[in-house]
Amino acid sequence: MPDTSHAPTSVTRKDLFDLPEGVIYLDGNSLGPLPKSVPARTQEMISGEWGEMLIRGWNQADWFTQPGRVGDRVGALIGAPESSVVMGDTLSIKVYQALAAALAMRPGRRVVLSDSGNFPTDLYMARGLLETLGQGHELRVVAPEEAAGAIDEDVAAVMLTEVDYRTGRRHDMDAITRTAQDAGAVMIWDLAHSAGAVPVDLGGSGCEFAVGCTYKYLNGGPGAPAFIYVRPDLADGARPALQGWMGHGAPFAFDLDYRPAGGIERMRVGTPPVIQMTALEEALRVWDGVSMTDVRAAAVALMEQFIEEVEARCPQLSLASPRDPGQRGSQVSFRFAEGYAAMQALIDRGVIGDFRAPDIMRFGFTPLYLDSGDVSAAVDVLEEVLSQELWRDAKYQARSAVT
Amino acid sequence: MPDTSHAPTSVTRKDLFDLPEGVIYLDGNSLGPLPKSVPARTQEMISGEWGEMLIRGWNQADWFTQPGRVGDRVGALIGAPESSVVMGDTLSIKVYQALAAALAMRPGRRVVLSDSGNFPTDLYMARGLLETLGQGHELRVVAPEEAAGAIDEDVAAVMLTEVDYRTGRRHDMDAITRTAQDAGAVMIWDLAHSAGAVPVDLGGSGCEFAVGCTYKYLNGGPGAPAFIYVRPDLADGARPALQGWMGHGAPFAFDLDYRPAGGIERMRVGTPPVIQMTALEEALRVWDGVSMTDVRAAAVALMEQFIEEVEARCPQLSLASPRDPGQRGSQVSFRFAEGYAAMQALIDRGVIGDFRAPDIMRFGFTPLYLDSGDVSAAVDVLEEVLSQELWRDAKYQARSAVT
Repeated sequence: MPDTSHAPTSVTRKDLFDLPEGVIYLDGNSLGPLPKSVPARTQEMISGEWGEMLIRGWNQADWFTQPGRVGDRVGALIGAPESSVVMGDTLSIKVYQALAAALAMRPGRRVVLSDSGNFPTDLYMARGLLETLGQGHELRVVAPEEAAGAIDEDVAAVMLTEVDYRTGRRHDMDAITRTAQDAGAVMIWDLAHSAGAVPVDLGGSGCEFAVGCTYKYLNGGPGAPAFIYVRPDLADGARPALQGWMGHGAPFAFDLDYRPAGGIERMRVGTPPVIQMTALEEALRVWDGVSMTDVRAAAVALMEQFIEEVEARCPQLSLASPRDPGQRGSQVSFRFAEGYAAMQALIDRGVIGDFRAPDIMRFGFTPLYLDSGDVSAAVDVLEEVLSQELWRDAKYQARSAVT
Repeated sequence: MPDTSHAPTSVTRKDLFDLPEGVIYLDGNSLGPLPKSVPARTQEMISGEWGEMLIRGWNQADWFTQPGRVGDRVGALIGAPESSVVMGDTLSIKVYQALAAALAMRPGRRVVLSDSGNFPTDLYMARGLLETLGQGHELRVVAPEEAAGAIDEDVAAVMLTEVDYRTGRRHDMDAITRTAQDAGAVMIWDLAHSAGAVPVDLGGSGCEFAVGCTYKYLNGGPGAPAFIYVRPDLADGARPALQGWMGHGAPFAFDLDYRPAGGIERMRVGTPPVIQMTALEEALRVWDGVSMTDVRAAAVALMEQFIEEVEARCPQLSLASPRDPGQRGSQVSFRFAEGYAAMQALIDRGVIGDFRAPDIMRFGFTPLYLDSGDVSAAVDVLEEVLSQELWRDAKYQARSAVT
């Protein structure tokens, strides 16, 4: 019998997911698994809506309003009020939109502050925007622990990812937001590793912008649409640098001049990906009646169990994540010089985590479909791979193009 | 028996499409119908790839390379060489990328030339970019017939849609490209209403950039990914203003600094929408073995038949499209003051076209799934709606939010 003393089981709903047999999936922080009801709903949308309604689906099946409707569902999981979140594009695009709008609010300042724990695409998009602006903005990238202290009155916008994609280290969203705003800077949070993983109170935080993706803890499928939040009092004035027709006040008037829609709808850009949006909308149903506080408590219990067992049974690894669960998202990372090969050996045995250069083995904890028994079973395999040095096998050493 | 004297039938492959019974679909220029094999393939991707492979799908199912692979298939339909087209995002985003790259090639010039027949989102995105650049660029919008004559040595980039979304009027791509380049301007073509509709020889035209969508004549489904073409000799130097991680030279190295990939791959931005991309990839199979020249000849025959029959039987309408098929894409538009209501009455009777303000009734001709009998049957219904003034019914006069 697995030891079930650590994890509350009340949030576990494995029956709602289609997990392959023999797999313990510790990579929901990278790509969430398939919720069972998604294939049928997607099929219905493709055959019954696209196939039967054809162009009429934009009205009859409410495709046109779907990005806002799904935005409200995501918003409910991150403490955002109704009509403050809209879906579309990718997280990279949403970062660009948020930062462009933020900089337009602080025309006299020239620094964008971020940290080296931010996901690289956020930094890339920011650099591209600053170059396009050509106004001499500087992207200042500091160590994560120095971020709060580096906020000064030159800073136009602070742009951070709450949970570090490698280590799981978690920023104090409320404190940093206050520090940024006290210095007159605009705050942008990337919630890629937060939405569906930790309780977020966007409304309470007071931050101006937030963005995130939905293919990790929200299980929307590979390439699921991203989201953007604009604080409601600012939305009517926010500048949509990527001003596409779906964000126009009257998209079907086909005016030659752009006039942004009121509120968050102006952050829409082009025609939304209806198939992908429908898969996401269906996937979000697994959250019906789930409390993020309960999810978090269960995730913390799973992580504490994992750390305890790994440290007891796998002395080859060293903890890369903060030990204090309050300073960590929903993943645990360990350093191991042969981490790449060890992760391949684990995956080959059905325990799926992932690897991030140079030496990070990442494990995501998602109590909707993981329980304490899974954690123990995963550590059994990890111990076997490490104690028997199974990672030495040449087939685990060869790197693939994409990891 | 329908009259089949006008249209060559060799390209008709209705059996490959899932068209609702009793519908004559003349709106493939807005949203193409469902190819029959798409539901099963999409299902296989969702359950067999996402569900079973989980994160491993990026390698095992080649999701990572899919945007380039599908780009090559689209490229083959528009005369683009291998590895010069990549898929992703929406047409609006691709317009932004192309124009940003074009302007970076002409730093000394300050005019972007477009025309009032361009799709509005192209103009909106351009205005947003020029405002972001803040260098005093002017977006000069002229009448379509004045576009070529308005190209002068102040023009950095000429940005036009080949086929007008309202009237079907078609620009002379080769001639305008030459005029633009003779004046030292960069040429950007939007092929939204061209790809899959008319033969396009991108390589032969010599234009620097092209963009387009795939949910119209390419039948990729609502919100299918867009494409961007960069002339191969320019791709390694093109500036990707939207520099996301998927366009990085080594996306999984997670460098903090951006270094663009070689060639067209740098125009990728964020994580690609794999479900939607898979639907498109499958949909493109209906083009296997099809010659665009044959498609075009068949479409012209259908359009000539339609114009002839409408003008003979529906004197209430006046042709809004060019009479010369050589100056027209694959749609025919008629003006009618009560066009909105008349179109609703048509749709109610299974003849689906669409309406564009203020008075345009649009009909798209797509010989892969339309034949001469369909054209005659559609005109029968149109004649009935107009001669009996069925459009007067109140239910057809009420406007919906989205048309």
